[in-house]
Amino acid sequence: MKRFLPVILFLGLSLAASAQQALGPGSGLVSSEINPDHSVTFRYQNPKAKVVQVTGDFLPTRPIEIDLGERVIIYDAPGVADLKEGPDGVWTYTSAPLEGELYSYSFLVDGKKAMDPSNVHQNRDVATWTNIFILSAQPGDKGWYYGVHNVPHGTVSHVWYESATLNSQRRMTVYTPAGYENGTQSYPVLYLLHGSGGDEDAWSDLGRTAQIMDNLIAEGKAKPMIVVMPNGVWFNQAAPGAAVDNFQPTMANSRSQSTIEIEESFPDVMQFVEKHYRVSKGYAHTAVAGLSMGGRQSCMLSLHYPDTFGYVGLFSGVGTIEGNEQAFAKVFAYEPKLYWIGCGKADGIMENSRRLKEWFDFQGFPATLYESEGGHIWRNWREYLTIFAQQLFRAPQQRKQPVRRYTSAVSEVD
Amino acid sequence: MKRFLPVILFLGLSLAASAQQALGPGSGLVSSEINPDHSVTFRYQNPKAKVVQVTGDFLPTRPIEIDLGERVIIYDAPGVADLKEGPDGVWTYTSAPLEGELYSYSFLVDGKKAMDPSNVHQNRDVATWTNIFILSAQPGDKGWYYGVHNVPHGTVSHVWYESATLNSQRRMTVYTPAGYENGTQSYPVLYLLHGSGGDEDAWSDLGRTAQIMDNLIAEGKAKPMIVVMPNGVWFNQAAPGAAVDNFQPTMANSRSQSTIEIEESFPDVMQFVEKHYRVSKGYAHTAVAGLSMGGRQSCMLSLHYPDTFGYVGLFSGVGTIEGNEQAFAKVFAYEPKLYWIGCGKADGIMENSRRLKEWFDFQGFPATLYESEGGHIWRNWREYLTIFAQQLFRAPQQRKQPVRRYTSAVSEVD
Repeated sequence: MKRFLPVILFLGLSLAASAQQALGPGSGLVSSEINPDHSVTFRYQNPKAKVVQVTGDFLPTRPIEIDLGERVIIYDAPGVADLKEGPDGVWTYTSAPLEGELYSYSFLVDGKKAMDPSNVHQNRDVATWTNIFILSAQPGDKGWYYGVHNVPHGTVSHVWYESATLNSQRRMTVYTPAGYENGTQSYPVLYLLHGSGGDEDAWSDLGRTAQIMDNLIAEGKAKPMIVVMPNGVWFNQAAPGAAVDNFQPTMANSRSQSTIEIEESFPDVMQFVEKHYRVSKGYAHTAVAGLSMGGRQSCMLSLHYPDTFGYVGLFSGVGTIEGNEQAFAKVFAYEPKLYWIGCGKADGIMENSRRLKEWFDFQGFPATLYESEGGHIWRNWREYLTIFAQQLFRAPQQRKQPVRRYTSAVSEVD
Repeated sequence: MKRFLPVILFLGLSLAASAQQALGPGSGLVSSEINPDHSVTFRYQNPKAKVVQVTGDFLPTRPIEIDLGERVIIYDAPGVADLKEGPDGVWTYTSAPLEGELYSYSFLVDGKKAMDPSNVHQNRDVATWTNIFILSAQPGDKGWYYGVHNVPHGTVSHVWYESATLNSQRRMTVYTPAGYENGTQSYPVLYLLHGSGGDEDAWSDLGRTAQIMDNLIAEGKAKPMIVVMPNGVWFNQAAPGAAVDNFQPTMANSRSQSTIEIEESFPDVMQFVEKHYRVSKGYAHTAVAGLSMGGRQSCMLSLHYPDTFGYVGLFSGVGTIEGNEQAFAKVFAYEPKLYWIGCGKADGIMENSRRLKEWFDFQGFPATLYESEGGHIWRNWREYLTIFAQQLFRAPQQRKQPVRRYTSAVSEVD
């Protein structure tokens, strides 16, 4: 191997054109390989390893009891499967047939995490990288929407704006739909917020926003729209590596270090967007949604600016009702076109999500509650975006007669 | 460890806000850590490993003889250093003090490559990921230009355009300088081409184009300009993961699979850019440069469109003189403002680079030849961009009286 490595490097670096046929031992491996029956085969070359395993969300989870002292909780840990070693030092595992989805995985080599060197595709979630693969088992399944197809593609831009409130330059990711550059029309806007530890790259990278929007718009299932993904942590001006002092990401919740809430700085984002993009302004053309921390932020933005967001999406994150009854009453007064709550059944946020849905129902403004399987995971958030985006900026729904109006509700709560 | 892992995952996924102080064993490691004397410490936790090494371009190379049968060549292989195990299973190595630079490295655990789990920063070069760190040893060194500073930042966009010649949508990366969104002025354009195996993300990711341009422009060392980074391989519409059928990248040289040269399809790129961006058109405002395959392509573009590119940069890649003498004569006729050749002294391209420089001198149009240390590596290409960009779109240089005019040169060659 020591002899081969420099030859490979040499050919790769200095004789680029001829390297293709000389990549040598191990490089011929295909992993992960999607088989015709939609099972997936993983391969890893390492003759010295004693145990090679694969862990990932394509495997059934393992419920594990965790003793926290005062109580025991059940945690659905990611599954682990053993690869088997062949005579050539190549370890192999083939999964059961899988549903269409974007899956994440890593190898465990003698218990230590290793990336799959045969798969260049990987995602960063906060500070952790994992390999990914996308399986589309049948046309129109979830995996299909996360993949790239021969449809018109929108533009993804990393743009800096000045936040007067936060006294700094900040970075946002902006999706403009296919045709934006060629046209003169204005588009509605979805502001899409990440969770703790995320940043302005989270929705475009982990969330597959551009692919989901490209595919939905091409099918006519979503209206062409601009999607704005700002950085929602006030003390991070940008993602790790794109900013001066944000080098190693952590689960940074903007609430944990300050009282500067997103409600204060968000007008800077909207002013920049409305000035620099062809945006249809106003309630019927403006949506806000977010996951986890971004769900709570979206809720608080809708309360703070009840006349601004006609469409609100809370993905595994909601605001509290207590103390916000009057603010919610103002939201109801504007008759929101869509107040959409999504949550996984195994998510600790589910209880509050159901309470908020009931509160809306009680006030006569039915919110939508979408309950999915699983917990607080990106697999759910990609799905929620796919569902939510299709309902945006449609003609105002014919509402049923409200059960009661907010004024009486407020007096009752007071 | 089995007990800790699910706890960590649970806290990380479901109790995001409180995970920061509970990330558990191993996660407290800092690696790579830049020390006050500009040495760098690497740390890796693995009690089961027998040998842990680090390999990277911060270490002195190891000259290795490679016997190719008919001849023996010397290859400068990347250096390797041993980490030492401490009592807690944490392996450590501290480098010598380093110069300011962007460095790449990987661990070798019992001979097998492993990413540094404590360092979220990594780059993909063709199909290989490595960790990176940026060291700025003193203000204004190379590392400083590759880092992010508190200067105005330009926008980086991933844009799709229609290529009539190639009958497909294709993706390009476009850098627009800070202030572009707010202004009405036009900017000169640098078309910047990648090498074999690269794609439209190579210059922005590995090449640090946005950081280099932001920093040079902020210091007044480069003129504000638009940098267009298209995909230069005709059968790849986009980078792996961004296109339908380009999943695992290889050293794909556009010449190796077809006779469709970039000269044929490049007008599609320029027409899109000139239509959709505020571009100063014409010879004095248009530059082309590229690395390796992209250097050859830049040379061929300058020959094919001698009235188009006033500034040409060939980084470790040149066109041949033989057969192109008349085409070069047309280049000379337009008196190029800058024909800049950069090459590493250990690069196999050096011989042809020197020949081209001599050919220019002989024709009375001095080209610039910049000879750097090292070979066919990104470290050189980042430096070449930093140098080349500063010379672009300046007032026409006062030329010395040409030694001879192209007409006589051509007749001599003929």
